[in-house]
Amino acid sequence: MNYPNGRKNGDLYKQKKLYSHQFGNRGMSLEKDINDTNAYYLETKKAVIHKKPTPVQIVKVNYPKRSAAVITEAYFKQASTTDYNGVYREKYIDFEAKETKNKTLFPLANIHAHQVEHMQAVAAQGGITFLLIRFSVLDETYLFPAERLFTHWYAHLKGDKKSIAYKTIKQQGYFIPFQYKARVDYLTIIDKLYF
Amino acid sequence: MNYPNGRKNGDLYKQKKLYSHQFGNRGMSLEKDINDTNAYYLETKKAVIHKKPTPVQIVKVNYPKRSAAVITEAYFKQASTTDYNGVYREKYIDFEAKETKNKTLFPLANIHAHQVEHMQAVAAQGGITFLLIRFSVLDETYLFPAERLFTHWYAHLKGDKKSIAYKTIKQQGYFIPFQYKARVDYLTIIDKLYF
Repeated sequence: MNYPNGRKNGDLYKQKKLYSHQFGNRGMSLEKDINDTNAYYLETKKAVIHKKPTPVQIVKVNYPKRSAAVITEAYFKQASTTDYNGVYREKYIDFEAKETKNKTLFPLANIHAHQVEHMQAVAAQGGITFLLIRFSVLDETYLFPAERLFTHWYAHLKGDKKSIAYKTIKQQGYFIPFQYKARVDYLTIIDKLYF
Repeated sequence: MNYPNGRKNGDLYKQKKLYSHQFGNRGMSLEKDINDTNAYYLETKKAVIHKKPTPVQIVKVNYPKRSAAVITEAYFKQASTTDYNGVYREKYIDFEAKETKNKTLFPLANIHAHQVEHMQAVAAQGGITFLLIRFSVLDETYLFPAERLFTHWYAHLKGDKKSIAYKTIKQQGYFIPFQYKARVDYLTIIDKLYF
């Protein structure tokens, strides 16, 4: 990317990029890291896992002559499932990824009720389902199994805390180390837990 | 749905609806039938299988004060995977659904190369992958296993026919009988083939 000389944002961007290149994945979004990881898994024939398209309610479409259809009115819809799914070593994989700037806790408001219900239905069918949680300020990413999420979720519905403590995620979840090619190499954790 | 009195399309619609109600699923789209079937599977805890959202390239979004974000310019993108996936009895399920008005053959132009590649990657991971093909004029729907599609696909790439004969689909595929609640009850075929 090129930035005009002396432009502050551009310089900042360059610094960040350099920094992330040298010291890890700081500054990259979790979604981008997961997409890169999934692309690497696909390329190396390790797994077939994709992000689902953003759900959009299409209201108006124009069909201009001699060019592609243009959607001129549409709205974002709330997803009724998780964002990522696919197949790995004959197993169905299904997960949601969430980033928080909070350093001490993960707010449960990040997850929707129907996503939890979806994860429960998947678990009941014998699918492997989990959250990937990134504490972006700490630059730490954890795999948090759905079964443990359910416990916190239902405790919360019965009046317990609206969040999971960072400490708890560290204890009950699994830290995902940064790898150069698989930036969020969650399948190494899945290998240990399920195979 | 209400139609103004005497409106031709409305009357036609009513007739069709009545007809399909009494005699089968003629006149209903394959997509609608599959969505209803998947909803029934989900409700009865038989399987968790969803259609992916239509992939859309979002270009412009307006954020009006006090109301929802409006997408004002977007384009349809070609899907890089199949339309449906999920989990059934611990197995990963992945399929594409296609309807043709042709009575004697299924044109391979209905399928994209990257969809076939995706199905091959899924099969290599031990996922269950197939086509659902409806001959709409005949009102017959078949499950056609991906492995058999691959044979026809690569024969076509080497200069063979651009289509699969209806007769071949009848022989190499599996007829899906119409069920009242699961209108395209493909999992009964999956039970016989894979369990």
